Amino acid sequence: MSVSSRRRIGVGILGCGNVGSALIGLLEEQRSAIAGRTGMDLAVVRVAVRSASRARAVTVADGVLTTDAAAVVNDPEVDVVVELIGGIEPARDLLAAALRLGKPVVTANKELLADHGTELYAAADAAEVDLLFEAAVGGGIPLIRPLRESLAAEPVRRVMGIVNGTTNYILSQMTEHGTSYRDALAEAQSLGFAERDPTADVEGFDAAAKASIIASVAFGARVPAGSVYREGISSVSDVDIAHARRLGYAVKLLTIAEQVGSVEGKPELAVRVHPAMVPVGHPLASVRDSFNAVFVEGDAVGELMLYGRGAGGRPTASAVLGDLVDAAGNLCRGTWTPVGDLGEAVVSPIDNLESEYYITMEVLDRPGVLAAVAGVFGRHAVSIRSMEQEGLGDQARLVFITHQASERGVQATLGDLRDLESVRGVPALLRVVSRG
Amino acid sequence: MSVSSRRRIGVGILGCGNVGSALIGLLEEQRSAIAGRTGMDLAVVRVAVRSASRARAVTVADGVLTTDAAAVVNDPEVDVVVELIGGIEPARDLLAAALRLGKPVVTANKELLADHGTELYAAADAAEVDLLFEAAVGGGIPLIRPLRESLAAEPVRRVMGIVNGTTNYILSQMTEHGTSYRDALAEAQSLGFAERDPTADVEGFDAAAKASIIASVAFGARVPAGSVYREGISSVSDVDIAHARRLGYAVKLLTIAEQVGSVEGKPELAVRVHPAMVPVGHPLASVRDSFNAVFVEGDAVGELMLYGRGAGGRPTASAVLGDLVDAAGNLCRGTWTPVGDLGEAVVSPIDNLESEYYITMEVLDRPGVLAAVAGVFGRHAVSIRSMEQEGLGDQARLVFITHQASERGVQATLGDLRDLESVRGVPALLRVVSRG
Repeated sequence: MSVSSRRRIGVGILGCGNVGSALIGLLEEQRSAIAGRTGMDLAVVRVAVRSASRARAVTVADGVLTTDAAAVVNDPEVDVVVELIGGIEPARDLLAAALRLGKPVVTANKELLADHGTELYAAADAAEVDLLFEAAVGGGIPLIRPLRESLAAEPVRRVMGIVNGTTNYILSQMTEHGTSYRDALAEAQSLGFAERDPTADVEGFDAAAKASIIASVAFGARVPAGSVYREGISSVSDVDIAHARRLGYAVKLLTIAEQVGSVEGKPELAVRVHPAMVPVGHPLASVRDSFNAVFVEGDAVGELMLYGRGAGGRPTASAVLGDLVDAAGNLCRGTWTPVGDLGEAVVSPIDNLESEYYITMEVLDRPGVLAAVAGVFGRHAVSIRSMEQEGLGDQARLVFITHQASERGVQATLGDLRDLESVRGVPALLRVVSRG
Repeated sequence: MSVSSRRRIGVGILGCGNVGSALIGLLEEQRSAIAGRTGMDLAVVRVAVRSASRARAVTVADGVLTTDAAAVVNDPEVDVVVELIGGIEPARDLLAAALRLGKPVVTANKELLADHGTELYAAADAAEVDLLFEAAVGGGIPLIRPLRESLAAEPVRRVMGIVNGTTNYILSQMTEHGTSYRDALAEAQSLGFAERDPTADVEGFDAAAKASIIASVAFGARVPAGSVYREGISSVSDVDIAHARRLGYAVKLLTIAEQVGSVEGKPELAVRVHPAMVPVGHPLASVRDSFNAVFVEGDAVGELMLYGRGAGGRPTASAVLGDLVDAAGNLCRGTWTPVGDLGEAVVSPIDNLESEYYITMEVLDRPGVLAAVAGVFGRHAVSIRSMEQEGLGDQARLVFITHQASERGVQATLGDLRDLESVRGVPALLRVVSRG
């Protein structure tokens, strides 16, 4: 390459867990190949850890490890800061300090970007240095860069993703082996795919943070994680999954960001996380196990899907290293990739959603029940596309798929159904991705 | 955005066919959004066409159209050149001239890059301007940028792609409707998916040019299109596809580039295009119709797939426009994305391939035939994993799947089988992607 002379770039890493260790190992393996191709020698000069005495998967030279993260950021030998601590503080302060010092930052911290992305993007642009975060969504899958750069001029309509590997693993087990939710979760925990407290994954908090980042990148507008509508998978039953399958659908936890209009020049976005029925012919339906994928629909580009390993030390480290090489190259050339101002988005409430719905409920098996139930649907202008009765007597159950209907009408329907004497327990609802 | 002041970037377009017209239309739609986000006003100032009088899908201002392509390149109002003529000359001379003038180039010309990429990449780096070509492979799919940038530091092992939409459409029709090759081709022609002379597509020449580009980007080394092993789909029969299906495989025309070793510091690459049997559970197996996809296997990142519309005016124009915004932004910031020197690759001949094989042949239905056939396999150390006889009498046919075997041994086996009196006609062969 025509870079004038080999340049040493000091890398400071904050956090040395799963991803941090994998990054140090991968960088060691690839250091001379990167130097040969780019003229840059990427040297890990400081690594901040919580406890200096803990055993680690990688060995680093004496004096590299420290428990003082601020010292890593401030070290004049550190040219680029990689943040892999996670969480809000102290990550937020450390990154702000790095950017103020004019040091490019690479981070995988989805919570931080979802909650404080706007201030950090502005700080990076003000300092004219990179803030890169490919690893924050979809692990090793190139996703942020294609959305920011390849699709920079694409009128994106909708992004639908499977961005949480734990829940996709659980739903895949339930689908393929008829496992119950409880058993599939226990299995995921025993394999290390789910945390002991699985709330962040199974209740959709992780996916909602990623939804916020995806929306900001795809539509160039701010969507706080707190304004993302969120439902998890803990109430999805194996019965629903079996019904869905028979009807030609797979159940997936989808992260959806779409532009539904615009209000006074601001994009109006619907951003939500919920389990959904995906037609089996749709590319997202065949994303199995802990794989992730993001499906993009654009006016010009049509349909795209980016698929791969959404988590894991080495896949995530690969994405971090790609960003690191990019940030280091930009630093050498005295340039950076601006994020640009994120305008405000108008977030459309879930009540405004129009969708097809799957609705099922246990009913008393006696004459007149269907008429009563159908009457409730009709009263709220929810039109039924198909209905099946399953089982008899105590096991009787009605399964409906609606035509396109409003969430408001469907929720009102569910409310009234709960009050019907002939409906037992709480009806279940899944939104349906239409066969289009 | 914090770019100091809005800057006008003059765009010169060479060629105004399908993609050129779509680009002009898309740029018109997106011009103010791009300006708002990037501070750059992308103005189409000159468009070179073959005939100035032909009717076009888009209208351009008076004086913009010209039949003199060199005048577009030389026009001082043109800051960035977009090449959509295709073919080698005059595109090669025009792009070289643009780069000499320090003008960034965006091109979708796969033949040119496959045959003369090295000289053009060197010219771009010498002039310190961009040469971007996202649209040359996989139409609208972000592929080149992820390979060049996101995976810049990834030890890529293998790239397997479906990069020709015409052949994928034909094979999908044969698979899903049992159509013969001849009928599926005729249908593709009537729908405009295949040219009247379909040779470039069905014999794999188009895919081989793309293989050369993919190999150079994924492995940073030169692989001339002429050294890509190439087989098309014209000898794939509906019988083979039906067998494959029953055995749990889909037949796809695959473009494969993989590193198989290294020789004196140079990567040893196997680069080939041929129909192959892909296990139905593999993500490439469900890529249907005219969709394209590229599956990447890396040491760190694991498995990735990038999927979308591989052709068509608007998808391809979307990729060109993404490159154009990038090139214009770099021009404003006084920087560029270097390609770097492409070293020579050692190309491993097809004879060295190790693979599983599907081999089928019509045989005389009489005692001793299987023993004779199996003897030939054994003599060449080709070990059989499964064998089925189909049909009886005149219709008798043997279907073999081998264990991992050498191409050399398999070709020798086929040669000897042809000489067996009990084997009728020419045995058919398909390479099999192992279930891994």
